[in-house]
Formats: sequence, structure tokens, C-alpha cells
Amino acid sequence: MKWCRFEHNGSISFGTLEDDEVHVAEVSGHPLGDHSYTGNRYSLEQVRILAPIIPPMLYAAGPNYRGHVEGMAARRGARPNYPAIPEPNFRSVHAIIGPEDNIVVPKDCSGAVQPEGQLAVVMGKRARNVSRDEALDCVFGYTIGNDISQRVWQGNDRTMFRGKNCDTFKPMGPYIVTDADPTGFHIVVRHNGQVWEDFRSRNQIWDTATWIQEMSRYTTLHPGDVLMLGTQGADGDMFPGDTVSVAVDGIGLLRNYIVAEE
Amino acid sequence: MKWCRFEHNGSISFGTLEDDEVHVAEVSGHPLGDHSYTGNRYSLEQVRILAPIIPPMLYAAGPNYRGHVEGMAARRGARPNYPAIPEPNFRSVHAIIGPEDNIVVPKDCSGAVQPEGQLAVVMGKRARNVSRDEALDCVFGYTIGNDISQRVWQGNDRTMFRGKNCDTFKPMGPYIVTDADPTGFHIVVRHNGQVWEDFRSRNQIWDTATWIQEMSRYTTLHPGDVLMLGTQGADGDMFPGDTVSVAVDGIGLLRNYIVAEE
Repeated sequence: MKWCRFEHNGSISFGTLEDDEVHVAEVSGHPLGDHSYTGNRYSLEQVRILAPIIPPMLYAAGPNYRGHVEGMAARRGARPNYPAIPEPNFRSVHAIIGPEDNIVVPKDCSGAVQPEGQLAVVMGKRARNVSRDEALDCVFGYTIGNDISQRVWQGNDRTMFRGKNCDTFKPMGPYIVTDADPTGFHIVVRHNGQVWEDFRSRNQIWDTATWIQEMSRYTTLHPGDVLMLGTQGADGDMFPGDTVSVAVDGIGLLRNYIVAEE
Repeated sequence: MKWCRFEHNGSISFGTLEDDEVHVAEVSGHPLGDHSYTGNRYSLEQVRILAPIIPPMLYAAGPNYRGHVEGMAARRGARPNYPAIPEPNFRSVHAIIGPEDNIVVPKDCSGAVQPEGQLAVVMGKRARNVSRDEALDCVFGYTIGNDISQRVWQGNDRTMFRGKNCDTFKPMGPYIVTDADPTGFHIVVRHNGQVWEDFRSRNQIWDTATWIQEMSRYTTLHPGDVLMLGTQGADGDMFPGDTVSVAVDGIGLLRNYIVAEE
């Protein structure tokens, strides 16, 4: 099943995509709590698809593909330093935008931002000290994220506040697909239509179940929490006027537009 | 006015402290949205005071007093490296606990944690690109936080996930005081009753208004967001059995107990 969140006539609802993939059935309530179908259905033309969820906590796996570690190291002229343990970092939930929204490049940065297109897992149940075998039972589904990064700030600042968490820097969506195998996804990142990355989730350094197991040793994962699972490669600069998209078979297309802050 | 959040007979409400400081007047709704007094009042003996708010985003100023920068540098045998700009880091909202709650030291760490007692500001309105003069108009009030830190993990890990964000590592409360001057607070941190830090908010490297102004250049601050404003000094290790407290004149006492994970 594919869940979405959408705006129609100024009000926001959750819904599920119908089999024809062009109609949405509206739900009242929250997909992770009590909910029921309202009986309303809309064509995708009639609604604006939003980020599918605003999580309590938004985590990022960071380096989770060897290609990303190697690509980022090569830029610095350094040897790749593979992560020793799966430790997430945090991202701002206020930076989340939906598909087709604008990524706004702040006035006072160098003008370029870079994409990190990736799969993201959405938690469905509380998880604390879960085993690897139990971990995927706590998952609600999978969506797409783009961990937009301003590399000058990321490299020079003490924290990743400006480098990765300016307003609009976290595109997410369009849908959350449930009942999927997290090792079976195929992710393609395009810049102005040109393929920049083409990779598969089975090549993660740590898989989804391991991330959930390891994180749950220290924190309680809550329903709705989102963990972005990392990108392959180290992509180049994007400037105002450019388009970036992340396509994942079985989930959908997350496309966004780079604009300059006015 | 002092706001609190409390549990009574298994249900959770917001409330305001009466002038006698021993009774709470219950409110229905949320202090930052529609709310009204229910007419119920309880003595503090009848209720359990919780963390006063669960913010959408929990930020930490990190180094915001010269003494903290110097103390942490001295430990490493390094020269103090004062921060160049006010850039916050993120903390996990799932790590928040209230006054009198236990701080649980994870099994697989060295056994010690350290306190960082501090003032925290709670936002009341959305703030984006606000001037320094407008900044304090967006504040709801001030509370107390303790940025519990596991220094081995903080020093060795790539991120602060385990080092500062394990479950129970973010005590907050007991009250949010409104209509206060953020430069006028006096903060005292005690370990097992002994004073470890005694400092004043007027000695911050950047004051509250500057933090709000500077953060709002990059992110929209939302109602309920909390920014912990930094501690003075570099305190020592605390072990299971110890008690830590942070007292701020005009706000209250945030006391917690160190226990070992079972």
C-alpha cells in the first residue's frame, strides 16, 4: 500500500493511493493511529502532494555506502575513512518539504547546494533494545529523501546546522510504501535529467534492520520517526534554475527545483 | 507566570502554578494554542511534574560561555577555541525527561556521565529572518535544561548520537517562566549537594536575542522549539547513586538521579 499526505482546498489529510496510481482515497486520522476512509477520493490533479509525514525525529545515516565515503574522501584528497559503527546524525524536521517544492538557496552562501538522494525508513512502532530479527516488524514503510547539503558550511562549521538544515533542505516523499523489502530498492538521482547516481539498497554498509537494532540500544525509536539511509557517490553542485530528482522503483519520484532566496 | 505540564491519575495536562507555589491550576489545550482553565486545581503533592513541553525541535547552543570553552580545552591539553558564530546543534526530543526522573547510564558505556546545567528558551511564535529587536517578542518563556553527556562517546564517535542523546539524557523543567529578562538569570549546578557551577546568564558569549536572530536567518523557529543556552565550566563524572540538580532563581529546581541501566 502507498500512503500519502495531501492538501485539498486548503486542508491537509492523509490518504492512500488507489491501484490506478492516479487517485487518492482520503483518510481521517493518522496512518499510525486511529484512522478510517472518509469516502472522498480525488485525482492527483486535484491535490497537492506534501511530504508524507512530519516525524518526531528525523535521523540521517550519513555514510552508509562505500561509494559515498570514497567520493567525499577523494574530494579532500584523503583516504576513505569508513564508519566503524552505525551512528546516525540529526536533521531538522522544519527543513522538510514535499515533492515539486522549491529548494531555496540562502542568500549568504556560495550559491551551490548538492543532493544526496536516498531511501528512508519510517518507523511504525516503538522500538527499544530490539533484536535484528524483530527490527523490521517495527517499520511502517519506506519513502524517499534528499539530504540537500551546502558543502562550504558543512566543511567549515562546527555543526551541520546551516550545512544541511536550512529551511527546504530536506525534500521527502512522495509516498510511503508499506510491506516492502528494504534490500530490494533501486535508487536513481538525476540532475537536470542527467543520471548522477544509480544504486541499489542492497549495497548499504549497514542494512535497515541493523540500523534499527543498533539505534534502539540507546534511544527509543517512536512511531513516525524517519531515518534516511544514505546515498551512493558524491554529487556535484546545483544552482538556482536546476532540477533534482530521486526516483525509487515501487515508491515514486521526488522532484524539486533549486531557487535563490529573494 | 509559571507554566507546567503534569500527570494526575494517569492523564497529562498543562497548568499554571498559583502564587502560593504549591498549587497548580489545570488548563485544557496547549499553552501555545487555544487553552482555558478547567477549574481543577491540585497541590503539587497530588501530581507528578513532567518536562514542561516536548518541543518540535530541541537545539543546544553548545559552547556559549568562555568558561566552558576553556574548561573543555584544558582537559584535552589544547588552547581554547572560541566559537566564531552562534550555530546550534540538535538534541533528541525522545531523550527528554522531567524533574525527579532518573538519568539512566547505558550498560555498554564507561559508567560515568557529566552534567551541563543551563538555561533554555522556549519559542512562542514563528521566527524567520527576525531582527535582534524583534527576537525576544517571539519567546514564550524560559526553563532549565541539563545536557547530560557521555564524554567517551562524545569524544570518539562521529556524531553526538550516543554521547548526548541516549534515552533520559535531556532533563528539562520544572517550569517555564514567562515575562522574564533572559540576561538576569542565576544558575547553580550541584552534584550530591556540592556546588559545581554558579554562573549568570549575562555572561553568555551570545545572548538569547542574538541566537534567535542568527538561527532565524537559516531556519524557521516554530512555537515550542527549545534552545538550550549553554553551561559554564566543565564538570566532572557522575555515577549511579549520584544526584544532580540545576537551580535557577525565578524558575525552580531541576533535580535528577543517576542510575545504571538494568
